[in-house]
Amino acid sequence: MTTTGSPTTPEQIAEKGPKPFPARPPIDLPESRRYRLKNRLLGPPLDTDQLEHEKLGIPVALAVFSSDCISSSAYATEEILRVLFVAVGVAAFSLVVGVTVAMLGVLFFLILSYRETIKEYPTAGGAYMVTRDNFGLLPAQVAGVSLLTDYVLTVAVSTAAGTAALVSAFPAVKPFAMPLSLFFIGLIAFMNLKGVRESGKVFAVPTYFFIVMMGVMLITGIYKLIGGDLGTIDPVHGMIKASKQGAAADGLFYGAGLAAMLHAFAVSGTAVTGVEAISNGVTAFKKPEWLNARRTLVIMGCVLGTLFLGLSFLASHVHPVPFESGYPTVISEVGKQVFGASTAGTVMFYALQAGTFLILVLAANTSFADFPRLASFHAGDNFMPKQLTKRGHRLVFSNGIIFLAAAAAVLVVATGAKVENLIPLYAIGVFASFTLSQAGMAKHHLTKKERGWRKGIFVNGFGALLSFVVLLIFIYFKFSKGAWVILVLVPIMVALLVRLNRQYEAEDHQLQHDAKLAATAPVLRRHVVLVFVARLDQSTARAIQYARTLVPDEMRAVHIAWDRQAAEELAADWRRLGLSRVPLELVDCPDRRVARAALEVVAREIADGKTETTVLLPHRLYQRFWHRLLHDHTGDEIANAVSKLEHANVTMVPFVMGEVNAPASAP
Amino acid sequence: MTTTGSPTTPEQIAEKGPKPFPARPPIDLPESRRYRLKNRLLGPPLDTDQLEHEKLGIPVALAVFSSDCISSSAYATEEILRVLFVAVGVAAFSLVVGVTVAMLGVLFFLILSYRETIKEYPTAGGAYMVTRDNFGLLPAQVAGVSLLTDYVLTVAVSTAAGTAALVSAFPAVKPFAMPLSLFFIGLIAFMNLKGVRESGKVFAVPTYFFIVMMGVMLITGIYKLIGGDLGTIDPVHGMIKASKQGAAADGLFYGAGLAAMLHAFAVSGTAVTGVEAISNGVTAFKKPEWLNARRTLVIMGCVLGTLFLGLSFLASHVHPVPFESGYPTVISEVGKQVFGASTAGTVMFYALQAGTFLILVLAANTSFADFPRLASFHAGDNFMPKQLTKRGHRLVFSNGIIFLAAAAAVLVVATGAKVENLIPLYAIGVFASFTLSQAGMAKHHLTKKERGWRKGIFVNGFGALLSFVVLLIFIYFKFSKGAWVILVLVPIMVALLVRLNRQYEAEDHQLQHDAKLAATAPVLRRHVVLVFVARLDQSTARAIQYARTLVPDEMRAVHIAWDRQAAEELAADWRRLGLSRVPLELVDCPDRRVARAALEVVAREIADGKTETTVLLPHRLYQRFWHRLLHDHTGDEIANAVSKLEHANVTMVPFVMGEVNAPASAP
Repeated sequence: MTTTGSPTTPEQIAEKGPKPFPARPPIDLPESRRYRLKNRLLGPPLDTDQLEHEKLGIPVALAVFSSDCISSSAYATEEILRVLFVAVGVAAFSLVVGVTVAMLGVLFFLILSYRETIKEYPTAGGAYMVTRDNFGLLPAQVAGVSLLTDYVLTVAVSTAAGTAALVSAFPAVKPFAMPLSLFFIGLIAFMNLKGVRESGKVFAVPTYFFIVMMGVMLITGIYKLIGGDLGTIDPVHGMIKASKQGAAADGLFYGAGLAAMLHAFAVSGTAVTGVEAISNGVTAFKKPEWLNARRTLVIMGCVLGTLFLGLSFLASHVHPVPFESGYPTVISEVGKQVFGASTAGTVMFYALQAGTFLILVLAANTSFADFPRLASFHAGDNFMPKQLTKRGHRLVFSNGIIFLAAAAAVLVVATGAKVENLIPLYAIGVFASFTLSQAGMAKHHLTKKERGWRKGIFVNGFGALLSFVVLLIFIYFKFSKGAWVILVLVPIMVALLVRLNRQYEAEDHQLQHDAKLAATAPVLRRHVVLVFVARLDQSTARAIQYARTLVPDEMRAVHIAWDRQAAEELAADWRRLGLSRVPLELVDCPDRRVARAALEVVAREIADGKTETTVLLPHRLYQRFWHRLLHDHTGDEIANAVSKLEHANVTMVPFVMGEVNAPASAP
Repeated sequence: MTTTGSPTTPEQIAEKGPKPFPARPPIDLPESRRYRLKNRLLGPPLDTDQLEHEKLGIPVALAVFSSDCISSSAYATEEILRVLFVAVGVAAFSLVVGVTVAMLGVLFFLILSYRETIKEYPTAGGAYMVTRDNFGLLPAQVAGVSLLTDYVLTVAVSTAAGTAALVSAFPAVKPFAMPLSLFFIGLIAFMNLKGVRESGKVFAVPTYFFIVMMGVMLITGIYKLIGGDLGTIDPVHGMIKASKQGAAADGLFYGAGLAAMLHAFAVSGTAVTGVEAISNGVTAFKKPEWLNARRTLVIMGCVLGTLFLGLSFLASHVHPVPFESGYPTVISEVGKQVFGASTAGTVMFYALQAGTFLILVLAANTSFADFPRLASFHAGDNFMPKQLTKRGHRLVFSNGIIFLAAAAAVLVVATGAKVENLIPLYAIGVFASFTLSQAGMAKHHLTKKERGWRKGIFVNGFGALLSFVVLLIFIYFKFSKGAWVILVLVPIMVALLVRLNRQYEAEDHQLQHDAKLAATAPVLRRHVVLVFVARLDQSTARAIQYARTLVPDEMRAVHIAWDRQAAEELAADWRRLGLSRVPLELVDCPDRRVARAALEVVAREIADGKTETTVLLPHRLYQRFWHRLLHDHTGDEIANAVSKLEHANVTMVPFVMGEVNAPASAP
């Protein structure tokens, strides 16, 4: 509270409240090279205290949480057209708006449903938490794993679509689409490892830039359309072809058309992925959190709906047939038509592409925030490796970030960085977790019977039903195209997670069982110290010196004699130096398996079950890595072998080797 | 001495003589999977006692020691022709015999020289030993490294030439020449790791088979030549072309011809590589060792000379122009002409190829015997990593074998498995070590002045001079073709070896210094035991139980509190369970670097230089590899960090985790 620039004194800090953990006194110890490198790459380490959350107002929160959702409008229309055009040819352009409106109906109910969730679970309303709370741990694993796979897919789809935006603007980089996608994944992962805070303002730029550019395009397009200036694209080489049936009909066959529309409807579900993001982050909002979160959710739904519908509407007039290769994108084709070839139009076109690119990369970034957090929930419940709960150097869940980046990179390589190939895998997980979480909400209303619970059951129940229907349609049409992978993968992963959970629980059970009894159990009857000795030198002498501090019932030096002559010389030296206080035992080892012989010696010592052995191994510490390489690691081998025995306590007695100062005897 | 089949009793064994090392009583401990695999692949382990040397008579010794040398005759003529033909065209065929005779002159003096060496150094007369004895350790490193590089090259050249013999017989396998060469290297390495004894009889077969087949070809060839039945080969596509000068001249230009002959002469030096093998293995001969060894040496020289000269002579009539690709080989072309296309001739041709192939592979095998032994000499003198002195599972120097195979494989890949590309690297090392070892012998005569020393000086001095001249010519002609690699490599390697030696000597110096004083030094004034505790469970309890056997001056449990809430819960449990006999210290760790915090705790403890600390780390032993993976390895990290401090003795206190038996609480 001082107005001068002087640093705060410790007393002032102490005043602020009790500090149960006193600060460690500083000590002068060099840091490892690895740690210094980490500091240079990622920045200085962050203390756990520094974990804090920015509270977000609605405008910033919209930018932070909606990039995943809103960015979907950049490719959803294209995927609808892709399905429709193959089936019914140019009739696709009269159907695309209808399909879009149908999905907007789904979106409407999802928004209603999540408004309920936000109100009821204002602290952590993600699908995992809601499902766990209402259906238990196992269904929660299904919901969680579904979402996790979808986060991986979001990263892959968004970077692939972002790269497609780039290629549409600069066709020259097309050959580098795959490496570019991988580069973006790596870059985002690195930024997340650095722990760039969710500094809302930075996030706001791409999101609003995209919204503005899309808005300008829609308004310009509709204005031109009314003026009759909006042209239609002539088909060129590289565009996908309508199937025979579709091409021949060149219009709407009732049966084929209905199937195609259902198919396109399911695919358009990719547009509503990311709707759950706000329900995961209610605590990040300014007070009243849940109210602000609900408002943001509604605004997000409206923006997404407007952009999605607008693009589909323009596309229905511009006739952008999707390209086989995925480039140029439908949105870029529409943009080109709308803005025209004038200088101002070209500038606007590039601005649109830049906005699309930026929001898509930002959408991938959202997954990098959500995936590690969700994985840490799983791990906290003992369903994933504990390492995922650990915060790294910069307070982020580093292991989760690295895993996500690796998985997404594999996917991008496997699918050739093409959005179209990723779509069949996408959205299944999202709609599965939607279904579970909304059903969970319905059960929640039924159990709690709070005010307005009947309406809640209706909203969430219908939301769950709708999600489930979309899920079924999607699986029906995409099963053979790759959806089966997810349907096989999710149950396998859930089974693995359950197996892993059982292992953790069993270990905990064993470790906790009678822990108190064990801690106060009497010591074993006999304590034997064995010093393993390879030759008589300073490091051995040091081990013997240490051994004498231990006050055991029995103490022996043991030499494994793989070279009998050397062993006899050692024994002679031992006698000569008057080391008889520690008797030397020579153990024959004709097969030269020193570690095995040592293991046998110790095993015989503890065979009675009443003996505690301490195995001392002289351990030379070398100054440089290559000095260590010059020696065999028999000591380490013995440690590895012996430490597998109960009551064999292996102690490395260090002896620090100095820097080389060439002695006179060197040549 | 019993005639019944009953096993020998221990008493009977004891009668045979004193046994200072009693056999270890058997104990029932399972073997590791790795060891069982080793046993299955390589056979049962061999005891050090089983190290014995077969004593060889002259016929078998010739086969064992001369395969490297005699096999050179399979490619030496081809390499001469390759040089001559490019320079002087078909005039090459009138010069090849002259060049061969000149090299036989060198061979003659080498044999005379090594006869001296064998007599004077009947136990270990290799270039390394002789140079070390007469010029000291540093020149010995030069001789040794030269030989080692040449052993690597012998393996590469021999397998490449052996594969060429195979391809000449079966042109269909030509695309697989490289993988075949690598396969043979791997196979020979594997056989050597298995420790197939130098069972002379097995070795005799390929060597004598090759000698016989070559003899038959020479006799048949000369017989046909006299009868005028020996045809000349017409040049075909794929043969190397004479250079412009050579082709235009189509005869002998004086200047160009002389240079070409000197060049060819140097290249023909590859024929005499391997001459030193017998001097390395005198102890393997039957008594009188040195006399038998000398006789074998002379016979080897005669056989090599006859085959080499004979092949060159036939080639001078048959006109086999070498092929660009290295296949078919000159020897196979000559064989084809000599034996003709009749059925019997074809059989003979294939037999010749088989013989060539077998002796070449056997020659590679010789290097696998010599290289590891020479490397173990270097290592024994502290000039190479100590690991090279260790005998493996089957009593062979496994590390040397693996290193040789890897180095040769790299060479084969780098040179495309072509003999021609390897030749510029070859022979330099051999002639360098010839020079050093013969000069060493000359000095030996000069110093010892034994009977006939004047003659000795002349023979060895002239041998050294001749070797040196060949070396210089070789370097002159091959410098830019790759010889520079060896000339750069050998000094670098020698420098590395000397650096390594200095390191070893310095370490020894440090370790030996005052070892006695240290061994009897008083114990440090204070002994502190620190038990690092992550949470309160059975493995922690076990560590505390062990700690109480140690009777230290002070004992504390230390918890690194990276999660303050968990730390406070642990402290509460500690009080509740009445573990106050071991006080618990909580160490704040806001940056979550547990190992670093532990390091600081220990460093502060030992800062006074009078404190011995024992750091106890509860160490859970998991039954399966993946169980271990599920946990972070903070314990190992602490051990790694802390063990770098002097007087910080890190003890892993084992707690054996059981198999999973799902407890009731698992889902």
